[in-house]
Amino acid sequence: MTEATAHFPNSVVASVESMAQQARQAAPLLARSSGAVRNRALGIMADRLLAQQQPLLEANHRDLEAAQQAGLAPALIDRLRVDAAGIAAMATGLRQIAALPDPIGEVSELRVRPNGMSVGRMRVPLGVMAIIYESRPNVTADAVGLCIKSGNAIILRGGSEAHHSNQAIAACLTAAVADAGLPAAVVQCLATPDRAAVGALLRCDRWIDVVIPRGGKGLIQRVIEESHIPVIKHLDGICHTYIDRYADLAMAIELTFNGKMQRTAVCNATEILLVHEAIAADFLPQVGDRLHQAGCELRGCPRTLQHLTAAAIPAVAATDRDWDTEFLAPILAIRVVDRFDEALLHIAAHSSQHTDVIVTRDHDRAMRFLREVDSSAVMVNASSRFNDGFQFGLGAEMGISTDKLHVRGPVGLEGLTCQKYIVLGSGQLRT
Amino acid sequence: MTEATAHFPNSVVASVESMAQQARQAAPLLARSSGAVRNRALGIMADRLLAQQQPLLEANHRDLEAAQQAGLAPALIDRLRVDAAGIAAMATGLRQIAALPDPIGEVSELRVRPNGMSVGRMRVPLGVMAIIYESRPNVTADAVGLCIKSGNAIILRGGSEAHHSNQAIAACLTAAVADAGLPAAVVQCLATPDRAAVGALLRCDRWIDVVIPRGGKGLIQRVIEESHIPVIKHLDGICHTYIDRYADLAMAIELTFNGKMQRTAVCNATEILLVHEAIAADFLPQVGDRLHQAGCELRGCPRTLQHLTAAAIPAVAATDRDWDTEFLAPILAIRVVDRFDEALLHIAAHSSQHTDVIVTRDHDRAMRFLREVDSSAVMVNASSRFNDGFQFGLGAEMGISTDKLHVRGPVGLEGLTCQKYIVLGSGQLRT
Repeated sequence: MTEATAHFPNSVVASVESMAQQARQAAPLLARSSGAVRNRALGIMADRLLAQQQPLLEANHRDLEAAQQAGLAPALIDRLRVDAAGIAAMATGLRQIAALPDPIGEVSELRVRPNGMSVGRMRVPLGVMAIIYESRPNVTADAVGLCIKSGNAIILRGGSEAHHSNQAIAACLTAAVADAGLPAAVVQCLATPDRAAVGALLRCDRWIDVVIPRGGKGLIQRVIEESHIPVIKHLDGICHTYIDRYADLAMAIELTFNGKMQRTAVCNATEILLVHEAIAADFLPQVGDRLHQAGCELRGCPRTLQHLTAAAIPAVAATDRDWDTEFLAPILAIRVVDRFDEALLHIAAHSSQHTDVIVTRDHDRAMRFLREVDSSAVMVNASSRFNDGFQFGLGAEMGISTDKLHVRGPVGLEGLTCQKYIVLGSGQLRT
Repeated sequence: MTEATAHFPNSVVASVESMAQQARQAAPLLARSSGAVRNRALGIMADRLLAQQQPLLEANHRDLEAAQQAGLAPALIDRLRVDAAGIAAMATGLRQIAALPDPIGEVSELRVRPNGMSVGRMRVPLGVMAIIYESRPNVTADAVGLCIKSGNAIILRGGSEAHHSNQAIAACLTAAVADAGLPAAVVQCLATPDRAAVGALLRCDRWIDVVIPRGGKGLIQRVIEESHIPVIKHLDGICHTYIDRYADLAMAIELTFNGKMQRTAVCNATEILLVHEAIAADFLPQVGDRLHQAGCELRGCPRTLQHLTAAAIPAVAATDRDWDTEFLAPILAIRVVDRFDEALLHIAAHSSQHTDVIVTRDHDRAMRFLREVDSSAVMVNASSRFNDGFQFGLGAEMGISTDKLHVRGPVGLEGLTCQKYIVLGSGQLRT
């Protein structure tokens, strides 16, 4: 530990380690608190955020001014902004999380073994979570809400550009857990915008159980590389929508348009469209026209370009790189495939295993696609935009995991917990 | 990749990487094979092991001779030995795994959302597993059986002292998957005993999904430190049995004796005994006598020593280090506690979170212990020795995870799989 952190300032390391130790000590008290106490804490958080609206807006104003002075891009400044409606939304979100069923203590699969003892599994918190995030200050409230509901202590580390906003929001939330009778150390926020603090935090594997980075690829890569703690991560969303030869044409157009254009800067937007050659001549001019009218740039394989050009729809040639690009923009790469299996092979080679969709009326192909495509969410006849905790009915989410271990897809309350075995015996001995 | 592996011989790196790539390519074919095909492969494995008994025994003989010449400890040589009964046991184990329900493709929690689309989860293989293990050649067959049953490609790396045995067993198993019509590359065994191969393997994060080390603490620590791939690990078993003041005295003696002495060199053996002071005077002389007669060394806190000495039972003073030691031997550290909460605090401070047991007739204490002790298995009135995949009804196990993420406790077929989300729609759009 000492050696590994030798290149960080001692004071930063000491303060981060002390925070992590306090979280570790407080975590068992939170883990064994009743759901009623944890829900009360969430309710008080919501009340406090609303009551503290003025100081919160002032803190946010300081961040916005600094961002403008630093010449941050308007889009980034926009993500940083918190207004009265934003504060109200945070409070509502916290109350919604409070209303979800308590995941903690749930016992499942309790079965009697031949020797008479019962063996089952009990859902318990993971322990201490560290959340490292960028920009949007509302993540502070969302992340704390989900962690407290699931019985986990949380250490927050937001982006330096949102430092004052995050500190002000976290102060409300920490005060709320104390008001509810829980240790204040279950909600802590790193007090310094010093970049070295992140490095020190990622080495606290003795006290922190899981790190969740939320933000751009650069942040996530840094966390993966530096962390000594297990990471639940969300990498690229290179999502495919495949239009099968047996697709309903009208449905295929709507699903493509919705998957691509309903929101473009998000991980579950469709980036790549695969089209069976038997339907391409009918489908591509129609969907191409609709997308082009809406301002979407089309990048096609040679056959795609033929179909689009014949219909006088502007399009450019796709490069090899396009098939592996998360555009996060109104850009769609389109490829015509000869066979269903070619679509599966393309997806296997290029998907980021986030979300992939088939549009078809053929049952066998739908079932094969569901079974064989290895992504966090695989869909038949639905928009890729549905891969989301709220849409899936989880109530809320901490992000969408593209990992395979522990949790895949939207990370809701269950993803923030684990199951231990419990045994109820009456003196059974092993022979 | 190239830079990180620069200190390994190029030929070793190239051959390990090529193996990992072949496993990655073959894995989808295995993942979508039917349960019948995978079970047939397991049956052929069993047949082949039995048919190849003579060459297997000869290969093992070569390892045994080399081990004797190298002056390996008799216990290690014993673990290395494979006889006809051992081969039959491997074959039986494979047939038992074949008889388990197929975990792959199982859909659960398929629920209809308000917009009419169904959202559920499908169980799928993790992909490519690397198993790094020591000594016992039978692990080769167990690990392959579990991986193939759960649809995962497997790369084996056994201990160099068992090199010939492992190669011979793996050759049977690889031939069997090919006989069953699966790609041979789903069962591969590193061909070189070169130590550098492990380092190269642990850097194949592009192609391997999970590493499971099975063996001593040294091996596991090395894997954790060097791996670029997620690890499912099994660290210490510092297991506690707590005798509450409300324990049934006879049951407490039996459970303590069974937990400590039924087998001592295993991870789920009781290493630490905590005794409520109200029952100590009755309990300690009786259990102490029983343990001492059976050859168990007793190390006690001052109050324990008083009780044992008064009954003329030999015991030594426990040192601070004893409370954090996995003895794996007939040694028991004993501490008298004043209160139930003191037992919980001791366990929180010293347990390796493997297995902890309470013996009590008090319902409230039993329930508090179950909820508050944060270990992979928490038991009431049962022997710590029951934390085991077979005993819990999982059919077989790959080890016992002391991790919190993904899988806790015995790693059976479910622990070798993950769940992806599936969506069955009829054209739903996100608005």
